[in-house]
Amino acid sequence: MKNQKIEVNGGATAGASSACAISTHGKTCNEQNADHSPSMLDRRQFFSKGLALAATAPLLTHVATSASAAQTGAPVATSPISARAYGTKSTTGPFQAMEIQRRAVGPNDVLLDILYCGICHSDIHQARDEWASWNPTRFPSIPGHEIVGRVTAVGRAVTKFKVGDIGGVGCLVNSCGTCDNCLADREQNCLNGATFTYNSPEPATGGHTFGGYSDKMVVPEHFVVRIPAGVDLAATAPLLCAGVTTFSPIQHWKVASGQRVGVIGFGGLGHIAVKLAVARKTDVTVFTTSPGKIGDAKKMGARNPVLWSDAAALKALANQFDLLISTVPKAYPMQQFVNLLKLDATLVNVGAMEALQQVHGIDLIHGRKSIAGSMIGGMAETQQVIDFCAARNIKADIEVIRPDQINRAYERVVNKDVRYRFVMDMTA
Amino acid sequence: MKNQKIEVNGGATAGASSACAISTHGKTCNEQNADHSPSMLDRRQFFSKGLALAATAPLLTHVATSASAAQTGAPVATSPISARAYGTKSTTGPFQAMEIQRRAVGPNDVLLDILYCGICHSDIHQARDEWASWNPTRFPSIPGHEIVGRVTAVGRAVTKFKVGDIGGVGCLVNSCGTCDNCLADREQNCLNGATFTYNSPEPATGGHTFGGYSDKMVVPEHFVVRIPAGVDLAATAPLLCAGVTTFSPIQHWKVASGQRVGVIGFGGLGHIAVKLAVARKTDVTVFTTSPGKIGDAKKMGARNPVLWSDAAALKALANQFDLLISTVPKAYPMQQFVNLLKLDATLVNVGAMEALQQVHGIDLIHGRKSIAGSMIGGMAETQQVIDFCAARNIKADIEVIRPDQINRAYERVVNKDVRYRFVMDMTA
Repeated sequence: MKNQKIEVNGGATAGASSACAISTHGKTCNEQNADHSPSMLDRRQFFSKGLALAATAPLLTHVATSASAAQTGAPVATSPISARAYGTKSTTGPFQAMEIQRRAVGPNDVLLDILYCGICHSDIHQARDEWASWNPTRFPSIPGHEIVGRVTAVGRAVTKFKVGDIGGVGCLVNSCGTCDNCLADREQNCLNGATFTYNSPEPATGGHTFGGYSDKMVVPEHFVVRIPAGVDLAATAPLLCAGVTTFSPIQHWKVASGQRVGVIGFGGLGHIAVKLAVARKTDVTVFTTSPGKIGDAKKMGARNPVLWSDAAALKALANQFDLLISTVPKAYPMQQFVNLLKLDATLVNVGAMEALQQVHGIDLIHGRKSIAGSMIGGMAETQQVIDFCAARNIKADIEVIRPDQINRAYERVVNKDVRYRFVMDMTA
Repeated sequence: MKNQKIEVNGGATAGASSACAISTHGKTCNEQNADHSPSMLDRRQFFSKGLALAATAPLLTHVATSASAAQTGAPVATSPISARAYGTKSTTGPFQAMEIQRRAVGPNDVLLDILYCGICHSDIHQARDEWASWNPTRFPSIPGHEIVGRVTAVGRAVTKFKVGDIGGVGCLVNSCGTCDNCLADREQNCLNGATFTYNSPEPATGGHTFGGYSDKMVVPEHFVVRIPAGVDLAATAPLLCAGVTTFSPIQHWKVASGQRVGVIGFGGLGHIAVKLAVARKTDVTVFTTSPGKIGDAKKMGARNPVLWSDAAALKALANQFDLLISTVPKAYPMQQFVNLLKLDATLVNVGAMEALQQVHGIDLIHGRKSIAGSMIGGMAETQQVIDFCAARNIKADIEVIRPDQINRAYERVVNKDVRYRFVMDMTA
């Protein structure tokens, strides 16, 4: 596959750690949601100088300055960036290498050379259009929202990153920044519509967003988290989605030492949920359909892994759990788990989007139980889980693969044959 | 219908306000759940003297003493009590007068002459066996769990009531008293199985419990709440079920001044929910299917009553509610209401027992919303709602009927043709 070179300073190829800063011209990511809220300009500082110039700039060519120049705010020209990506053009695949355009780097943007990208079950749902009824897939579909990369350029107004830093991108790449939800650090629930890392409208290109199955990416710095020095970058990538998705309910429901937490589904999300809950000194039970995973669950600190098929074990656990986190990625019979909740306790689904299966009002009415949903986390919470895990050496159990192995990897994820997350080395 | 006279002091008919106290012999209500927990004897004081005597005591005859004698604990004989009741022998009715036996009055029991009993939609569900899959109806079915009566006798160990007091009975008449849930004032969730006011096993008789469609009732004092002096007794009866059922979620979810509360379904429970939420100085919206109830909702303090059929109005209310209390007594499409919840907010069903209808994981995942259930309240909370309402002159809007009008009343409840609760005058 052709790897489009980026012209820097008149022609040098930008390396992964090249010290450059790029000012912006043309439509920026920040402008995507501007229609929703006139006042967002108060929060987001636009850099509009040189806009007319950009309109006539040669495509795929931009001029960068040194990092110090970026900090002084010296305007430099830029233009869209060609990137290598792996995507699918239909629901049946296969994934193939393709060339895409990343928008020009805006004043608040960071350009990342992507190092690692995890494969989340959501990627598969999206690529195969399994969420057609509420989030139909735009093709070509280029998933990926567990991204770790090296900063190779920063926009003029960027303050959080400098070239050479390591940044992480999860499921979000923009939001209005001004609605009540954004102001409450709940960008994922932006009332004007969050821009997700893939399959969201992308006004800058007139198309849709492309995820991290790629070698480069342009993201507003607000949506890039700091990756602490010294962590295992590949094994940290899954924390950007799987980590924050399971961390958020643990935070929200104030899971505390000594409580009993159940994790339903023991895959990419589930195994991280176990590690996070164990780190909180809770008594963790795993509910899995895979006998072969019992040993791993114990090693990770789950006291009594239980097979879904073990009706007697489930019955014996009735009314015992303070929180159940279901990471199951599709509809599943819920009543058997609702029965395990204590008074006033909650079963939170972080994966299954379909109609709730086997839940009756009576199951909830007896004991004032709740079924909730939770979706990823806001940017502050995403940074929080990264820092929480770095401080405790919590990371995903991963199998590193090359991007040309995506098709096979998808099959193995669906068949629950991964221990416990595939992460692609995007430099391979 | 024959009204069995109770022999008092050797033959006098016990009037509604007769000052008598009855000691207990024979199996008491307290013993019902004793099998579940050996230690319950520590909490509940049994009075076993005279047990052998009771076994040979003439049926329907007992000997009472004066109130002062009861307080001194002087043992007196007692036996099961005949009562008049209104019940149905099959799912198709009709209700008819019948004679039943109430168990003997135990040391912790109160004998009530029932003055008023509300008609709850649950009564209809039970009498018609509409909950067959999880709570099949035992016939004859004698419903009624919104009961206000006058104390006509108290067991030896009773301390909370004296003859002549007014007491209220809701949905519960016993529980183990020793499990974690009972000790947490959640008797309705007794881990050993609460005894509900009707249709529960009643070990004392070998049959099942009979509710308040009757003229007399024997209930442990713990399950009788004090009715403050001066309240409208008929209009207070519905608070014993409809009141506490809607009060409990308002308490649990800490509904506070200025919050926005939605009440879905505006009938017996719904109209009390509105009054309770208005008393908390919340902004209340009613969602009703009955255009004819809009005016009443406004009079009760609901700002903007909305018809379910008004899709535009529902859409305009998206993401605005801190709590939605659904009093709908059967399955209904929920998604349209889930959409109205704010971030992290809850829709609580207090009526519908069936499979949740039209709820997808995605509806909850976006915004971390919850669907919960809530069932009546414990005895402390039941007393609390009675006192709360008495202090604020909150009462049900009722239509008082005679017991021989039950059949017609049921039809009118099902047809939403009652403003807003039928209450039977059991002395009529």
